[in-house]
Amino acid sequence: MKLKKIVILGSTGSIGINTLRIIERFPERFKVIGLTAYQNSKLLEKQVRKFSPRYAALDKKHIPDFQKIFGKSLKILDVETDLEFLASLPEADIVVIGMRGSAALKPFLSAVRSGKTVAPANKEALVIAGDIIMQEARRHQATIIPVDSEQSAIFQCLNGGKRDELKKVYLTASGGVLLNIPQTKFDQLSVAEILNHPRWQMGKKITVDSATLMNKGFEIIEAMRLFDLKLSEIQVLIHPEAAIHSMVEFKDGSIIAQLGITDMRLPIQYALTYPNRIETGLKALDFFKLKALTFKEPDFKKFPCLALAVDVAKKQGTLASVLNASDEQAVEAFLDGRIGFTQIYNIIEKVVSRHRVIAQPSLTQILDADRWAREETEQLIAKKR
Amino acid sequence: MKLKKIVILGSTGSIGINTLRIIERFPERFKVIGLTAYQNSKLLEKQVRKFSPRYAALDKKHIPDFQKIFGKSLKILDVETDLEFLASLPEADIVVIGMRGSAALKPFLSAVRSGKTVAPANKEALVIAGDIIMQEARRHQATIIPVDSEQSAIFQCLNGGKRDELKKVYLTASGGVLLNIPQTKFDQLSVAEILNHPRWQMGKKITVDSATLMNKGFEIIEAMRLFDLKLSEIQVLIHPEAAIHSMVEFKDGSIIAQLGITDMRLPIQYALTYPNRIETGLKALDFFKLKALTFKEPDFKKFPCLALAVDVAKKQGTLASVLNASDEQAVEAFLDGRIGFTQIYNIIEKVVSRHRVIAQPSLTQILDADRWAREETEQLIAKKR
Repeated sequence: MKLKKIVILGSTGSIGINTLRIIERFPERFKVIGLTAYQNSKLLEKQVRKFSPRYAALDKKHIPDFQKIFGKSLKILDVETDLEFLASLPEADIVVIGMRGSAALKPFLSAVRSGKTVAPANKEALVIAGDIIMQEARRHQATIIPVDSEQSAIFQCLNGGKRDELKKVYLTASGGVLLNIPQTKFDQLSVAEILNHPRWQMGKKITVDSATLMNKGFEIIEAMRLFDLKLSEIQVLIHPEAAIHSMVEFKDGSIIAQLGITDMRLPIQYALTYPNRIETGLKALDFFKLKALTFKEPDFKKFPCLALAVDVAKKQGTLASVLNASDEQAVEAFLDGRIGFTQIYNIIEKVVSRHRVIAQPSLTQILDADRWAREETEQLIAKKR
Repeated sequence: MKLKKIVILGSTGSIGINTLRIIERFPERFKVIGLTAYQNSKLLEKQVRKFSPRYAALDKKHIPDFQKIFGKSLKILDVETDLEFLASLPEADIVVIGMRGSAALKPFLSAVRSGKTVAPANKEALVIAGDIIMQEARRHQATIIPVDSEQSAIFQCLNGGKRDELKKVYLTASGGVLLNIPQTKFDQLSVAEILNHPRWQMGKKITVDSATLMNKGFEIIEAMRLFDLKLSEIQVLIHPEAAIHSMVEFKDGSIIAQLGITDMRLPIQYALTYPNRIETGLKALDFFKLKALTFKEPDFKKFPCLALAVDVAKKQGTLASVLNASDEQAVEAFLDGRIGFTQIYNIIEKVVSRHRVIAQPSLTQILDADRWAREETEQLIAKKR
């Protein structure tokens, strides 16, 4: 068995922590060679002690402390400038992208251009620049194995048939914390209420995106890129029990589904061991304890962010970059108490509608659109206060 | 596209009829070269006119009529003696085994020994002599693509991983017509009540076997043979909505399921077009109209035939042949009004318990056990009257 050498971008977030839990169980299979964090230097320090990577990157202000602690045993890098270098280390086999936000775009591209196996949990890079990433992956023979639970399910289900026999993808959604809360109450929702997700333990930003269903909208765009799908080939299916992680319908009407418990270690481990599967040591899904599995259509009126994302998915170009950037700023403002829950949509919608779309944009144009959208969004947030 | 030449054993039964409906839609892909029936000469005549096979086999007494009608344009064979010849025609690519009962065993073996692609809907041959069939299939490089809905689902799900990564198979069962009828009423059940299956349109024998869950017991043994599974690797799951046709759990806890409408044309067509998939022209499963999917453990006390089959699956040898033969006779007696519903189990159980098992039996020993079981069963039926 060849030891796989792994770089984890964002090792102190939930994806990074879970990836390290898997690696810890299989020291004969995996070796961590690079870890990165922004501000959580305490946790990164523990991770470095435990896994002894050759490289660690973090915010500049923590670098002197790290140098004192680890001396020459560790190459210490600046997270702002050195992630592209880390993502393209010649000795790396797999680059896990656990960091969130569009900051992942450049290291993602760097990993892809170095022909790595890339395991992205990050959606933003694929949403805003998926075309470019997939094109570069083909050119440099990089393998992309999604870690996002739904995208991993689709990836696994596609083994059930040939790509050109695919008819439709059912992208399942638990429905988020607001599924059974009437829209009339949305105005009064507190941050704490929104952060109480019923199925998945995740970061704050993505939990808010799950509540608005913007997250599902991003996943639509992500799936279009990852699997070269048309918008019409994707059907969002509200499935509150979250036992089915997604499904693929083939031409002959046969549907292949992937099911499992809601634990991110499943898709992460699959990406690390692909094309093989090994024990996870986790409990299996228990069909006898499972509640009935139910399905319904998404409510686009109640969740206008999903409708907006679908509209963006139709138009594409720089618009996905604008949607993503505006959402990042608006959700941050909501989490900081600067705007109310329903203002998230109102603000993003305004920014999206004001944007002049550039079709088939360059990377520079994508990043310009991102910057523009953040400024526009901040101005609208300031006005709302 | 190479034209696939097809022999259908049992073309006037439900599997045969559905197979011909598929073939009719794709004349550029499939050509029927052989059809067989026992007594339904009228339907066979229509089928021969429509599909112009080179060969047709039926009961001896209808042969003169057929000779008058078709003259030298058709080679007319005796269904009692000539199925092995038909199943091994050098020009045949696929042999569909739609006929029921252990009579399918010899033609099944003949097809396998000729290295054909065999699409069996028949369970009995695999239940009573699965070891021999699979061994011969390996030796002669025959491909077996099961047509039974559950086995087809397992076959399709196995594409999601490697065979040695399989942990468990979930064999789903609609639960049959008696799922919600209390056991205390079983004594008074009429033949008509038993034949009213909620999910699948099937022949009478298999519908009774679905009511007793003996059918699921046979499928356990069949799956053990087809996929080389241990009994402990198979979990029967009562799933009344019959949307999930079966599932495979892999080592890592990931479960791959196959779903679809309950129409036998789906698995039949998959067997005919394997490894490709083509349009069926059938409606897809509609998740928005679907009721909640539910699961529960099978009730072995209420359905002792399932418990008996599990016990037989443990012991194997000639016992599966005895179980199958005794069930055929007992169900026939029930359908003829000679015994009541609960006597089906009582009689089979007696016959199975009286049998002296031969481990790793020859084909002759299997067929001897079959004959012995039929005689024993008939004696018990006669006594009960």
